[in-house]
Amino acid sequence: MREINIGLLGCGTVGTGVAKLLFEQRDLIAARLGAVLVLRRAADLDPDRDRGIRFPDGVLISDARKVVEEPGIDIIVEMIGGEGIARELILKAIERGRHVVTANKALIAAHGNEIISSAAENKVDLYFEASVGGCMPIIKTLRESLVGNRIAAMTGILNGTCNYILSKITDEGSTFADALAVAQRQGYAEADPTLDVEGYDTAHKIAILSALAYGTPINLKDVYIEGIAHITPMDIEFAGQFGYRIKLLAISKHRGDAVEARVHPTMIPFGNLLSNVNGTLNAVTVSGDASGDILLYGRGAGMLPTASAVVADLVDLARNILSGTAGRVPVLGFQPDKIRAIPIMPIDQISSHYYIRFSVLDRPGVLSAVSGILGRHGISIQSVHQKGRKTDGAVPVVMLSHRAREASVQKALREIAALEVTAARPALIRIEDESLED
Amino acid sequence: MREINIGLLGCGTVGTGVAKLLFEQRDLIAARLGAVLVLRRAADLDPDRDRGIRFPDGVLISDARKVVEEPGIDIIVEMIGGEGIARELILKAIERGRHVVTANKALIAAHGNEIISSAAENKVDLYFEASVGGCMPIIKTLRESLVGNRIAAMTGILNGTCNYILSKITDEGSTFADALAVAQRQGYAEADPTLDVEGYDTAHKIAILSALAYGTPINLKDVYIEGIAHITPMDIEFAGQFGYRIKLLAISKHRGDAVEARVHPTMIPFGNLLSNVNGTLNAVTVSGDASGDILLYGRGAGMLPTASAVVADLVDLARNILSGTAGRVPVLGFQPDKIRAIPIMPIDQISSHYYIRFSVLDRPGVLSAVSGILGRHGISIQSVHQKGRKTDGAVPVVMLSHRAREASVQKALREIAALEVTAARPALIRIEDESLED
Repeated sequence: MREINIGLLGCGTVGTGVAKLLFEQRDLIAARLGAVLVLRRAADLDPDRDRGIRFPDGVLISDARKVVEEPGIDIIVEMIGGEGIARELILKAIERGRHVVTANKALIAAHGNEIISSAAENKVDLYFEASVGGCMPIIKTLRESLVGNRIAAMTGILNGTCNYILSKITDEGSTFADALAVAQRQGYAEADPTLDVEGYDTAHKIAILSALAYGTPINLKDVYIEGIAHITPMDIEFAGQFGYRIKLLAISKHRGDAVEARVHPTMIPFGNLLSNVNGTLNAVTVSGDASGDILLYGRGAGMLPTASAVVADLVDLARNILSGTAGRVPVLGFQPDKIRAIPIMPIDQISSHYYIRFSVLDRPGVLSAVSGILGRHGISIQSVHQKGRKTDGAVPVVMLSHRAREASVQKALREIAALEVTAARPALIRIEDESLED
Repeated sequence: MREINIGLLGCGTVGTGVAKLLFEQRDLIAARLGAVLVLRRAADLDPDRDRGIRFPDGVLISDARKVVEEPGIDIIVEMIGGEGIARELILKAIERGRHVVTANKALIAAHGNEIISSAAENKVDLYFEASVGGCMPIIKTLRESLVGNRIAAMTGILNGTCNYILSKITDEGSTFADALAVAQRQGYAEADPTLDVEGYDTAHKIAILSALAYGTPINLKDVYIEGIAHITPMDIEFAGQFGYRIKLLAISKHRGDAVEARVHPTMIPFGNLLSNVNGTLNAVTVSGDASGDILLYGRGAGMLPTASAVVADLVDLARNILSGTAGRVPVLGFQPDKIRAIPIMPIDQISSHYYIRFSVLDRPGVLSAVSGILGRHGISIQSVHQKGRKTDGAVPVVMLSHRAREASVQKALREIAALEVTAARPALIRIEDESLED
């Protein structure tokens, strides 16, 4: 049986998962593929660490460069992560005519365009299914299954760490800091959680998905990013009273000649399936003009779920190699000459429904001052709720707005925050609820 | 730009949707594919009916055979439905070296093995993504994305008509007959609803998915099938009190050297995402040993959602044609020589948790008679609920069992039904709830 030779760079958790699947599912994969995926060489800076699996003698070495340079390797799997050595080795592998599989969303989001053009020049394939949504086939779905659809929008829970923390606050009323500490103890959050809780990781993913959906170059720098560190148990409780859950959503919408691409905590109604996606799980909804909404759900991270997606890419590539058809599906889902830049709207220009919580002194005239400012900025309020609980002499007042312009809302909030009667900066959370009147 | 020529058989709702997408998304598809999908010829017995779209002159004819025989057609799309003429024309197309796309689940479930071997002999491809789950890419996910996984189980809501009717009974307490009548008025159920409400359509789909998941020939005849006509508002209400919703589920499990494949109304807990899939929507969960559970959700029927899946198949096939690689992915996801028969367990041999509702005369000793019979058959009860409402002198008694053998449960129910104190045949609904103790 024909063999396809694989070189693996990086044997951390996911790299080890890939090796494990290639060893343990070798016959199963061969029964499906009609060829054997052979892990010819793997590299890790610490090759001697116990990984719970046995590599054949001589397969696991310490020098990743040697793997890239080794003759006879068909596909390089990059599992090092980060944007430094990973980028360098991927580019080198591509120049040597190797096809590449990676799960590195940070790299693809930041340097994908460069890597993609290098792959095109060298007529090799670049696959990165595992970079978004772990085992969920969201990239294949966009590139292949929705090929007859204009994509109107995507909405995703794409970071398990944030979803775990928000689920924890929701279920147990803990603070963000406590929930983060639990997530760190459970291994769901890194020691430095910035990349996850500040929304960057989610932004990487929605930047990649937006490019695939709309046929535009990857544009990370214009994605609006807001993390979850400011979400309080109080806001989550109020949200629940209005029939909403708070999730860190990646939202991407095609708006004529521009795109919305934003990451922020968002209130969504209980009836929305995404609101029932809890713990570390991921899910994403895609709206196609023919398909309507479809949703994919699954483990967005972890050793074997991520490896499952990597192996799917490897088999896809192996089928291309066996039939001599690199470039069968273009990397971004559109033919390279059809990719055109579509600008991402600045967050100021979007419009949305808003949840706004003011902390105001309990004095006559306060509500009228606040609502006067909102009115002057053209923000119309659909409901006001004064909640009785006094903290430091202030009471929370919650307002849900009709659809309003973000720029106006931000200006109004700045004016309101400057009032003498406001005890703290107002809390603002965007609402995605199709059932609301505009 | 290279053209791929398509012949369409059958211009009913879905066939018209395919034509519509090919016309309206022509440039979009070409931008992704790098070639143009041209609807060269289409056939329908009634070519003159107004379909709301304009076919170029001469494209729509009345004789489907002519389309199959026309030189220069690359792909035949079969949208006639049924197992008669559709089968004949597909086999003829394959013999003439045409690739085939169909959405015909009844045909694939009943005659798929024959058609697949004919396709293999003639070295053409056969694609049928639209046959299961409409726009959801469940077949591609099984064949390609989960290729590194052993599939342990699948659970699906695969028939929109049944899901609509059950949602209606749940939301409005209507009877099955009333809900069906509404579904018929709304166009969600056929005049003769047998295929849907008796579970056959769902069985077709799970037969196809089981073959793809486990690498076994399609086996429709051994799938256990039970419809929803016996589901009462009372059982749905009791289910709700226990935290369950009733859905018509397709359940498929790999059990060592056998497979469970069954279609029946099933109680699932509110926390299960499938319990929140309402109306005409479809969803399916697949458990892979590496991926864990993934779920796909979307419109399982309808003109454009189904056409979306057909166009995805067309583009896949077009890519194969452009690169000369028919058979790139084997039809059932496994190399033909690796497909082996795995028997489906008779329903008697499965084990499950059960909801059993007895209608008994309100007399002393009745409960002990009933539970005595259950005990003699080794069925252990985890909770008993006597509900106060008397109907015709009888009261409903509801029991939830621990895990029990289906054969024992059926025997016990027959004995209980024969008791003098039982007013009607007991109602039996299987429960899928992983949180229950065995």
